[in-house]
Amino acid sequence: MPKTRYMKDIKEGEQVRDLFLVGNKALLTSNAGKPYLSLQLRDRTGQVEGRVWDRAEEIGKRFERDDVVEVSAVAISYQGRIQFKVHDVRREEGGARDLSEYLPVTRKGIDPLWRELQKFVGEVKDGDLKALLSAVFPDPPTTDVAQRFRQAPGGKTMHHDYIGGLLEHTVSVAGICRMLSAHYEGVDADLLLAGAMLHDIGKVHELSYQGAFDYTDEGRLLGHLYMGAEYVDRVCATLPGFPADKTMIVKHMILSHHGELEYGSPKRPKTLEAILLHHVENMDAKATAFTDAIAELREGARWTDYQRMFERYLFSGKPGK
Amino acid sequence: MPKTRYMKDIKEGEQVRDLFLVGNKALLTSNAGKPYLSLQLRDRTGQVEGRVWDRAEEIGKRFERDDVVEVSAVAISYQGRIQFKVHDVRREEGGARDLSEYLPVTRKGIDPLWRELQKFVGEVKDGDLKALLSAVFPDPPTTDVAQRFRQAPGGKTMHHDYIGGLLEHTVSVAGICRMLSAHYEGVDADLLLAGAMLHDIGKVHELSYQGAFDYTDEGRLLGHLYMGAEYVDRVCATLPGFPADKTMIVKHMILSHHGELEYGSPKRPKTLEAILLHHVENMDAKATAFTDAIAELREGARWTDYQRMFERYLFSGKPGK
Amino acid sequence: MPKTRYMKDIKEGEQVRDLFLVGNKALLTSNAGKPYLSLQLRDRTGQVEGRVWDRAEEIGKRFERDDVVEVSAVAISYQGRIQFKVHDVRREEGGARDLSEYLPVTRKGIDPLWRELQKFVGEVKDGDLKALLSAVFPDPPTTDVAQRFRQAPGGKTMHHDYIGGLLEHTVSVAGICRMLSAHYEGVDADLLLAGAMLHDIGKVHELSYQGAFDYTDEGRLLGHLYMGAEYVDRVCATLPGFPADKTMIVKHMILSHHGELEYGSPKRPKTLEAILLHHVENMDAKATAFTDAIAELREGARWTDYQRMFERYLFSGKPGK
Amino acid sequence: MPKTRYMKDIKEGEQVRDLFLVGNKALLTSNAGKPYLSLQLRDRTGQVEGRVWDRAEEIGKRFERDDVVEVSAVAISYQGRIQFKVHDVRREEGGARDLSEYLPVTRKGIDPLWRELQKFVGEVKDGDLKALLSAVFPDPPTTDVAQRFRQAPGGKTMHHDYIGGLLEHTVSVAGICRMLSAHYEGVDADLLLAGAMLHDIGKVHELSYQGAFDYTDEGRLLGHLYMGAEYVDRVCATLPGFPADKTMIVKHMILSHHGELEYGSPKRPKTLEAILLHHVENMDAKATAFTDAIAELREGARWTDYQRMFERYLFSGKPGK
Amino acid sequence: MPKTRYMKDIKEGEQVRDLFLVGNKALLTSNAGKPYLSLQLRDRTGQVEGRVWDRAEEIGKRFERDDVVEVSAVAISYQGRIQFKVHDVRREEGGARDLSEYLPVTRKGIDPLWRELQKFVGEVKDGDLKALLSAVFPDPPTTDVAQRFRQAPGGKTMHHDYIGGLLEHTVSVAGICRMLSAHYEGVDADLLLAGAMLHDIGKVHELSYQGAFDYTDEGRLLGHLYMGAEYVDRVCATLPGFPADKTMIVKHMILSHHGELEYGSPKRPKTLEAILLHHVENMDAKATAFTDAIAELREGARWTDYQRMFERYLFSGKPGK
Amino acid sequence: MPKTRYMKDIKEGEQVRDLFLVGNKALLTSNAGKPYLSLQLRDRTGQVEGRVWDRAEEIGKRFERDDVVEVSAVAISYQGRIQFKVHDVRREEGGARDLSEYLPVTRKGIDPLWRELQKFVGEVKDGDLKALLSAVFPDPPTTDVAQRFRQAPGGKTMHHDYIGGLLEHTVSVAGICRMLSAHYEGVDADLLLAGAMLHDIGKVHELSYQGAFDYTDEGRLLGHLYMGAEYVDRVCATLPGFPADKTMIVKHMILSHHGELEYGSPKRPKTLEAILLHHVENMDAKATAFTDAIAELREGARWTDYQRMFERYLFSGKPGK
Repeated sequence: MPKTRYMKDIKEGEQVRDLFLVGNKALLTSNAGKPYLSLQLRDRTGQVEGRVWDRAEEIGKRFERDDVVEVSAVAISYQGRIQFKVHDVRREEGGARDLSEYLPVTRKGIDPLWRELQKFVGEVKDGDLKALLSAVFPDPPTTDVAQRFRQAPGGKTMHHDYIGGLLEHTVSVAGICRMLSAHYEGVDADLLLAGAMLHDIGKVHELSYQGAFDYTDEGRLLGHLYMGAEYVDRVCATLPGFPADKTMIVKHMILSHHGELEYGSPKRPKTLEAILLHHVENMDAKATAFTDAIAELREGARWTDYQRMFERYLFSGKPGK
Repeated sequence: MPKTRYMKDIKEGEQVRDLFLVGNKALLTSNAGKPYLSLQLRDRTGQVEGRVWDRAEEIGKRFERDDVVEVSAVAISYQGRIQFKVHDVRREEGGARDLSEYLPVTRKGIDPLWRELQKFVGEVKDGDLKALLSAVFPDPPTTDVAQRFRQAPGGKTMHHDYIGGLLEHTVSVAGICRMLSAHYEGVDADLLLAGAMLHDIGKVHELSYQGAFDYTDEGRLLGHLYMGAEYVDRVCATLPGFPADKTMIVKHMILSHHGELEYGSPKRPKTLEAILLHHVENMDAKATAFTDAIAELREGARWTDYQRMFERYLFSGKPGK
Repeated sequence: MPKTRYMKDIKEGEQVRDLFLVGNKALLTSNAGKPYLSLQLRDRTGQVEGRVWDRAEEIGKRFERDDVVEVSAVAISYQGRIQFKVHDVRREEGGARDLSEYLPVTRKGIDPLWRELQKFVGEVKDGDLKALLSAVFPDPPTTDVAQRFRQAPGGKTMHHDYIGGLLEHTVSVAGICRMLSAHYEGVDADLLLAGAMLHDIGKVHELSYQGAFDYTDEGRLLGHLYMGAEYVDRVCATLPGFPADKTMIVKHMILSHHGELEYGSPKRPKTLEAILLHHVENMDAKATAFTDAIAELREGARWTDYQRMFERYLFSGKPGK
Repeated sequence: MPKTRYMKDIKEGEQVRDLFLVGNKALLTSNAGKPYLSLQLRDRTGQVEGRVWDRAEEIGKRFERDDVVEVSAVAISYQGRIQFKVHDVRREEGGARDLSEYLPVTRKGIDPLWRELQKFVGEVKDGDLKALLSAVFPDPPTTDVAQRFRQAPGGKTMHHDYIGGLLEHTVSVAGICRMLSAHYEGVDADLLLAGAMLHDIGKVHELSYQGAFDYTDEGRLLGHLYMGAEYVDRVCATLPGFPADKTMIVKHMILSHHGELEYGSPKRPKTLEAILLHHVENMDAKATAFTDAIAELREGARWTDYQRMFERYLFSGKPGK
Repeated sequence: MPKTRYMKDIKEGEQVRDLFLVGNKALLTSNAGKPYLSLQLRDRTGQVEGRVWDRAEEIGKRFERDDVVEVSAVAISYQGRIQFKVHDVRREEGGARDLSEYLPVTRKGIDPLWRELQKFVGEVKDGDLKALLSAVFPDPPTTDVAQRFRQAPGGKTMHHDYIGGLLEHTVSVAGICRMLSAHYEGVDADLLLAGAMLHDIGKVHELSYQGAFDYTDEGRLLGHLYMGAEYVDRVCATLPGFPADKTMIVKHMILSHHGELEYGSPKRPKTLEAILLHHVENMDAKATAFTDAIAELREGARWTDYQRMFERYLFSGKPGK
Repeated sequence: MPKTRYMKDIKEGEQVRDLFLVGNKALLTSNAGKPYLSLQLRDRTGQVEGRVWDRAEEIGKRFERDDVVEVSAVAISYQGRIQFKVHDVRREEGGARDLSEYLPVTRKGIDPLWRELQKFVGEVKDGDLKALLSAVFPDPPTTDVAQRFRQAPGGKTMHHDYIGGLLEHTVSVAGICRMLSAHYEGVDADLLLAGAMLHDIGKVHELSYQGAFDYTDEGRLLGHLYMGAEYVDRVCATLPGFPADKTMIVKHMILSHHGELEYGSPKRPKTLEAILLHHVENMDAKATAFTDAIAELREGARWTDYQRMFERYLFSGKPGK
């Protein structure tokens, strides 16, 4: 059964029978002492709460969090929001599911972004670095890392928190770095571009994103800076004659790209390329988070809600023309 | 008398009779109880200590710090450095002196930078902002502010600390901002470019640079962020029909460009253009300071001395090709 | 229709028909799926929630937040608090309304405080500063700034958050500063008094206070320190022969009165008068906030709730006599 | 032998034979391999280095740091400063020496300050607090603590670093607190005045001041906040019927007067009187340090050297009249 | 009437008539406008909310917070948790109640811990310190302080927050310190052990624990570091010939054991024993808090909820064997 | 030629001809304009400055920093310290030199410490961890890493800054961790011991110690936390069937052992074993640094000089017995 209706289009009173991802599942008890099931249901356009009032315990055993399910329900309005009064839930069995139906996804398209990334790989002149990048980002993406890299979000909640977000962020950072190589003297353009493309590679195993985005054990215990540098070290070890100094300097860029110890970099940037990468990476995260926050502005508002990432309110106002 | 010999070329044993700037002047007493004059003498290529052993008090009355003087001396070596044993000093009277003979100056040339700045002004489409920029940066530079803007250093010691440094920094920041307007969606390109060009305009009165660079009273008590915003406010008031909102948003960019309260911005950046400007400005200061630090590396060294601006040692190493 | 009943006197079960200010307005949906209107209604003695259950959408269109409205309701008790079950709401049209009926107001009285302020102006001996103060605080208060200055709150939530709060704070700070001029040697009494009276003048445009207190765009983007200094600069420019040094030093006092960069001062206090002003201003804010917190103590309690401004609990206990 | 010449009056070339305090004593070896004695000699008007070139070891055994000695020397000039070429040194034996001859002393006079303090004690109406203050500050000062309190400096280097400095600071703080009791409602005037007078009482044993000011072991290991509170606790225990609550609240004021944990207060101020005391105490330290820094300005300078206490340069400029 | 049923065993639907401690009491009003009583009822195995719907006001007057009461109720399920629908409440009059029935208590047993503590006292060789410890911890515990020391919790919420927690923490810290005396050279074993046993003695009066744990007035205004040092000072004063230096060094250990000013120590540790004590004390608090957090893990979970004390999530995973 | 005289025994006036390590070498010019060579010469007992006045340039070419040289000189006294007036310097050619003759070395002996370490390895019961430890610390130490591990200092200047210092620190930390496994419930003893032994293994390549201790490029760019975790990862990869979870948890302990991000750990400790290791490691560094500082106390002093690592003065006083 293909998916036909999307969250953003469903209206109060509508009968719904469609596929959704289960973001959360909890068995609760009503004031009247009756057990009911509370579900977070989502697709790529939004999410709603669903409540199962009849046969809650039985139905609750049919599926788990992060499953795709077929839901039969009626959409009602509760405290100003749509809620599903759910009649039945059935686990969707079978084939690989298309995450991009159920989770928000980059507006720029995964394939176009991938092609842009490959173009950057093609521009690298240094043979070692080109070999390293080709090993990490083979085209077509035959490795597990490359496939995860195309799908992974850029973060859990802070910025680029959607499927393909990591790829989008990487391509944007690489693009700006390429411009800066022309702008400033003394930049090793290949090195800066390689560092830009590899800086967040550890995120492919830091976050899980089969349903709700969350950190993996490894992500919480080691972090993507360490994981990325270690991964690059391993790949370099497989490349004949890859110079030790070059490995060291690329790993330094990965480890130091958060800029300061208190942001989780065990070493601060100490080369020109590492310093530039840190600034660009940080700026791209902030610019994207700004744009996302503005996109969610309530109608007519010029100030956003309080933004935890920025620790401030943001202003969308532009001077009138 | 024109200047003929420069610091960097003077060798031990050489007889010197040439023009230098007095960076510092102090009357001291030797172990033997005899007064002598210690001078810091500089031109655009370097600086040395000069000592006047005979008639120290009499000669010391002829000139002040920041004067250009004609010095007669012999170059000796003291603790591994050139020092001048000075026979006579004479104050250079007369016409305007050329600061760029006596102080370090931007390697990129003041006139080429100025032309680049004018090109940016020409690209601004918004009529109000173009009028504002034309008033601040008239071409030719007929106002006191514009003339000072072409000469002023970018800072006292931290970065761009040479004649023309402010102009160089401004042009670099504006250039990157122009690239980012094309890179990111939702950027008001005219506003970002205008903010980039105006962000440090308050520095024209924050630093004095007729000799040693130093802060003015106004610079220390009000600071270039305040002074720049107030100056822009005054210029806007002279432009017919300049919208109040536009003034406010440009002033916000100037006031917030240090990014955080603890770096002296009374408000943190809250618009997309202000956020981008802050990041670019900061990155440019760091990249330039990095390049300057590497330029002073001792022969064969790969690590710089401790850099106070970065609070770390910096590494010049590049992976071998 | 004049206002006759006040929030603090209204009891459970009472029929109410009177004027209130609308602090907030929201159209919500009940569990049963029925829309209702939730209003925050306030006068100078307190505030309650009002709910409109019938004709919610129609009635909701008659007025906006910050309007004064005539409300017909019955007072009920809900979760231990008074709530209005509202039958009808009518927008109060016509003439200027008296904010002091609907918003909390300084207990010290606006007119007595204004007279005290004028007395301070009268004591200033320096001709320039007296002219500046007379221009900012004309008596009678014929300018927009002076009129706003008499009404504005001292803050949004932290301290002096009531009509006339800014005036009350200013008079208190000025009074203490006058005492300190006599206490310490070397203080320029006129300068300290002028700085005290002008230090928060930027707040007249930083906060809006026609209903709920809130920040203006300008307040959030520029802040009252900048706005106050710029305003004083403009006024000084209109006073013939006002010395530039004097303007600079007064502006320094305004800009630095928060004491530290991280509290929003772009420069820290560097003159004796600026240092004293900062300490007095800070102490007055804290002492007033303390007194306000104690005034809201629950019966019999000696410890306040957690105070966000102080980041601690406060103690009202006094040693028994 | 009475002292006749003071440091500030001694000129180059003068033969000196007079009494000085030994601030420091070190036996060094010259370039030529000869031992010599380097002394820091001081009286209340200043200090110089003295060097003993002959019989250095023998003469060095006659006296210790902090002794008063009779010095025979000739004043020479070395590196722009007066230095003593010392021929002989003799320890001054006998009776109690007058510290105020050899150490800087409050300009306000110890006896006048003491009388002012006694006047404050006399104004306290609360019987318990008056008994406490009379026990701590008996008049005449018959106890060891009271005698030390009259002599002790207010600090080692930061502020009030002269004999009588503690008394001067205490009287100033108490005077301002008395004014604030009249200014603010809700202040317990007796409590605030008592706290003001007692807040630094622990300093009588925190610093030694028989020569160079220095911390005692107890001062470094326990600190004057703890020592003061413990001392007050002991005194209260000797006063019949002194209420436990009152002891607790006074001790809280002493412990909390540094305002923040990071400044050494184990608890932050939580009563109105403790909050006011903290602000006044801090302001008085800063105002006095400012005045001291300005007093040492070089001729013609408007900016001080870098002030470590303020972490900034200070400005003495006043607007011209 | 003895207690027979414990919270952890009570099931939905069960009729309850047993003794509980009142942790909190509030008279609220239902949606229907009817007053009801909400109680927090607890015993050593857990806590539930109880609601009295009939005669709420009358019943509410019979007892206070922290009383032990006999409750007649039926256990229902509300929002997934057990709640008591209470029919009647009666205050339990008469004899001393056994806190360990109603509050959580150390798993290690108060008596065994006390015996271990006494063993440590017996090991101290230094006569003065042994006398001090015997006076503070007499066996049997005949003093008020010793009796409180056996009962007091180690903290309000952060760590060791159960009856006997202070004793448990003290014994653990002392045990580790004893090991370190053998491990490191140069440690004064008696001093370290004495400091370990006395470091938190001030907590006996910092927290009240007759019902809900809370801070006393003294605890909030003076803190257990001050109170502990002052108490030790008083005890030492009663011991003939106790050396002043020894008192000072023990008090230093107590005052400094939080390690840093910002954690409430007015002085940081400056002796080897104080440094070791600080580290051990801190480690023991963290290790115990970790173990407590893991003990509350939801079934199957490997990560705890966010831990405020650690400002992070904790991981229970062990490598499989 | 074997070494016969040591720095600590050489007296003024003595003729010296012996082997020393060159810590530093600089060609300077005297006041008289004559070049001379300034050398830092050291052996395991101390260091002196040596000056070569004749044939300075020629002699200076014979050797480099970190060489062992034979020095002919006479010991003179300069400014209270021994200095060598050097006649001749000859580079010591030939076989491996014994670093422990020229650099300070652990007082506990490298071999005894190594045996203690091996005993710990022998106690580990978990087969995987035992295999890992045996691979890292083979006995006899046949690998480069194991040999460096026996020699490396624990730090450059802060603590354990002598040959064998890393081994000494590791053994001490492991010993305390073993005790804690018995003290606390729930500790995985094998894991804690393994983490303790491996935590600083990255230091074998972070510091160079063939002469003056200094950081390697890799040490500065990657740091010993990263390098240690990566090294353990590589070793685990060579051990058949080593579980991935176990590798992850050991790497987490290494990466997190500095405890906080701002001390260079990219992740903070999140397991019980990681938390204990962090505290023990920190305590051992502090306790050792304390002991070292006290060992350098000047005769009779009870307070050390200012200790940068502690940011305070330390007290050696013990209560008299």
